[in-house]
This record gives sequence, C-alpha cells and structure tokens, in this order.
Amino acid sequence: MRARELRTADLTEACTPLRGEKLSPQRAAVLADAFKALGDPVRLRILNLLLTAPEGKVCACDLVDPVGRSQPTVSHHLKVLREAGLVTADRRGTWIFYSAVPERLEALTRVLNPGHQPAAVVGGAA
Amino acid sequence: MRARELRTADLTEACTPLRGEKLSPQRAAVLADAFKALGDPVRLRILNLLLTAPEGKVCACDLVDPVGRSQPTVSHHLKVLREAGLVTADRRGTWIFYSAVPERLEALTRVLNPGHQPAAVVGGAA
Repeated sequence: MRARELRTADLTEACTPLRGEKLSPQRAAVLADAFKALGDPVRLRILNLLLTAPEGKVCACDLVDPVGRSQPTVSHHLKVLREAGLVTADRRGTWIFYSAVPERLEALTRVLNPGHQPAAVVGGAA
Repeated sequence: MRARELRTADLTEACTPLRGEKLSPQRAAVLADAFKALGDPVRLRILNLLLTAPEGKVCACDLVDPVGRSQPTVSHHLKVLREAGLVTADRRGTWIFYSAVPERLEALTRVLNPGHQPAAVVGGAA
C-alpha cells in the first residue's frame, strides 16, 4: 500500500515543525515510513556505502560485493530506500548510480535532534 | 527475538566507525533495530513529546491524551523504545517518567550524517 515515492514536499513539510513544536499524526506517518526503511541492516549498509563513497554515488553493481547480497536483493533494498525518498537514482547508459538525498536525511536528523542545524548553517555565517 | 535492551556499549561502538568508515554487518544490525523502533508514527510522536517537553521528561500518564491511544498501547510503544535504547524510565513513587537518551539519538544521527558533530562540540566549549 505504500508503493509510492515520497515527494520532496512531504518530507520538507514534515520536518518543519520539529524545532520544539509537536509532531502531527500525519507528519509522523510520513517520517515513520522513512525510519522504517532504515530498520534493516542491509539498507543501512547500503546507505553508509553511498554516504562514504568518494563521489557520493555508487553504481548498483558495485554494491553487491560489499553488501554480500544478490543483485535482486540489493535492487529490492534500493527500491525501498528510493520509495522512502532517502536515495535517488541516476541512469548513465546501462548503469544506474545511486546517491543519498541529503535533505531527506536532514529531515530525519531533526526528528532525532529538534535543535539540529544543517552543517552549512552551523559552519558558517548564520 | 529482540526482547532485550540495547546496552550503551552496543550503540556507542556502533556509531564510532561511521565517520567515513564502512558499517559492519554486526553494527548495522544494532543500529537497524533502533531505526526500526522509530518506524511507527505513534512512537515518533512519543519521542517528539519527550524531546520537546520543558523538563525533558514526561509521565507515561501524560502521554495518553496527546498521542490519542490507550494506556496499554502507549505502554507497549514505550517498551519498544526502551528496548531500542532510545528512551529511559525513571520511577517516582507510583509514577514513571520517561525521557529520551541523547547519546542513542546521537548515534543514529551519525548514521544519517557521518560528518555530524554533537551540539556540544559544534557550539564551542568542547
């Protein structure tokens, strides 16, 4: 029933009221879907591989060995992460490169730490 | 099978290698359990209520109305959050007060943002 990709607006809106305000049931549902997608060790390791990749993106084919799962299994987990809005895909010819979506991760970070400032703000002229 | 509380050492160790290093399957499993616990809208709202409470803690009885669930349901969700190491309980007479566990949330934050610095460090005096 949740085979839809979260729109950017969903998570952007969802994270807005978290700096000290109460989380509505509707917004909590959107965010919970994203957290649920991370409730799997293989998906966490895939996300970690994307976040720690030198160029910030990894070909799906290069995830199979490090994760130790079959290509179909890796593809399934990537699909779950994409549907949760956590990962985006970029096709280059026959290859598909995946990268994490920083603003999505930032939205989840603000749930865990309502006072969290994005790195760009913390580090700079704000 | 996961009816155990995560030890502090589990999550502390789990978050250590995330600043650019690869996440091991064992550590990913520990962290995934914590993310999984947050994959529910009611639990996210409970966590939000604890994080935004003026004193940083809330009596279980005061969570029932805001969350709109029965006391047994709220108790169940609190148990899941406790088992995931995300929430701690403090009994005062007949009342039990719950609060979030900052270091656990910090461990998850570093998964989402490997370059994240704890607020105390970012703020200066560390």
